[in-house]
Amino acid sequence: MTYCIGVKLEDGIIFASDSRTNAGMDNIARFCKMSVFERKGDRVIVLLSSGNLAGTQAVIGVLNQRCAAGDAIPNLWSARTMFDVAMLVADAMRDIERRDGEHLLDNEVGFNASFIVGGQIRGEPMRLFRIYAEGNFIEAGNDTPYFQTGETKYGKPIIDRVITRSTPLADAIKCVLVSFDSTMRSNLSVGMPIDLICYERDGLEVRKRRRFDDGDPYFSALSREWSDGTREVFRRLPDLRW
Amino acid sequence: MTYCIGVKLEDGIIFASDSRTNAGMDNIARFCKMSVFERKGDRVIVLLSSGNLAGTQAVIGVLNQRCAAGDAIPNLWSARTMFDVAMLVADAMRDIERRDGEHLLDNEVGFNASFIVGGQIRGEPMRLFRIYAEGNFIEAGNDTPYFQTGETKYGKPIIDRVITRSTPLADAIKCVLVSFDSTMRSNLSVGMPIDLICYERDGLEVRKRRRFDDGDPYFSALSREWSDGTREVFRRLPDLRW
Repeated sequence: MTYCIGVKLEDGIIFASDSRTNAGMDNIARFCKMSVFERKGDRVIVLLSSGNLAGTQAVIGVLNQRCAAGDAIPNLWSARTMFDVAMLVADAMRDIERRDGEHLLDNEVGFNASFIVGGQIRGEPMRLFRIYAEGNFIEAGNDTPYFQTGETKYGKPIIDRVITRSTPLADAIKCVLVSFDSTMRSNLSVGMPIDLICYERDGLEVRKRRRFDDGDPYFSALSREWSDGTREVFRRLPDLRW
Repeated sequence: MTYCIGVKLEDGIIFASDSRTNAGMDNIARFCKMSVFERKGDRVIVLLSSGNLAGTQAVIGVLNQRCAAGDAIPNLWSARTMFDVAMLVADAMRDIERRDGEHLLDNEVGFNASFIVGGQIRGEPMRLFRIYAEGNFIEAGNDTPYFQTGETKYGKPIIDRVITRSTPLADAIKCVLVSFDSTMRSNLSVGMPIDLICYERDGLEVRKRRRFDDGDPYFSALSREWSDGTREVFRRLPDLRW
């Protein structure tokens, strides 16, 4: 399983992903699920991947090779808009699906790669997309400013209660990390380290990136203080009168 | 879908269930999923049902008929322990499964009734069980004092953070109601009214029972103040330093 989230706020976009992959309870490994394509002053593109690791790595591999091939083929460096970026990711997914799909037919996992893709290209506002395994995609809007993939349910209520488009980045980061903490407590197939990027609007470079590993002092303090804080809120809430 | 929860604390047991049943998005109805067998001074038995409504109603119907038949057949009034109660519920489930099971083979829902059963019989401590669709069951212990059924994920993190065995009943009730609020916001197949019983240890009668329907002033205030409180907690949490 996986937990990834992208949140588009007025001041920037927050991206976060866990690093656990598993094929059964007894086959667990760590792989970074966050890929960054950055050209300072021109574009920042962040991909968060979910699904079968062979599939998602193949898609990132194809995207990288097309970037390396130069302008002969459309690629993430030459894309003029984030919409074009989403199309290029979808194209790479479909190429891999065409190549691997029939060989995975007997495998219950199948080709199930999916992505959260967001960022900013100079001349455009920030944009955030969710690309399904079939290669079609949706874009975040004002009503729903975030996308989750993987084990989404445990961490959703806190996001829904706290985050609106105008939430300050600092508060939204704390909320995203608490959302990860809640998810990891309940689903062992989501695990540290957590990769986090806070992209600031119009920055056109990645200035804030952090990895939280087991025992990270800030993450542990946040988890503890959040638990204490919620218990205090409950004590202050009005008691039910019967 | 459904959301039910039973929480066994030092001071009592809290039972809560939603009331929405649905067969598709366009076929929604309200049915109480909480059944109470109470003989003041002797026993309080509460059942929370999940799964196909025809199945759960049939089980409750059988239990009621066996109670009405008197002492010729073992029943919930003659059971000497809560363990025996759980066995009687399981027996009724298996009787219905034998009767209906083969007729439901072509139905993807099948016979999938399951129950949370708890309460107290004079001479015994309070006990809480979760009975699976197969009729086998587990009992709540010190490490995990609660059981959920149905749409369990959205409402689980808050229960895990706030409730321990020694949580006061008044706080645990607020936590259970917030857990319902979080679940109903994310899953339309869980819905009002919410039935709530707070059984107080050794009371051997139901003194506190409430139904919360749409627009209930207390429930609405709780939801609003909880959202405000959590946002305040986030503001007070330490900001991440990069």
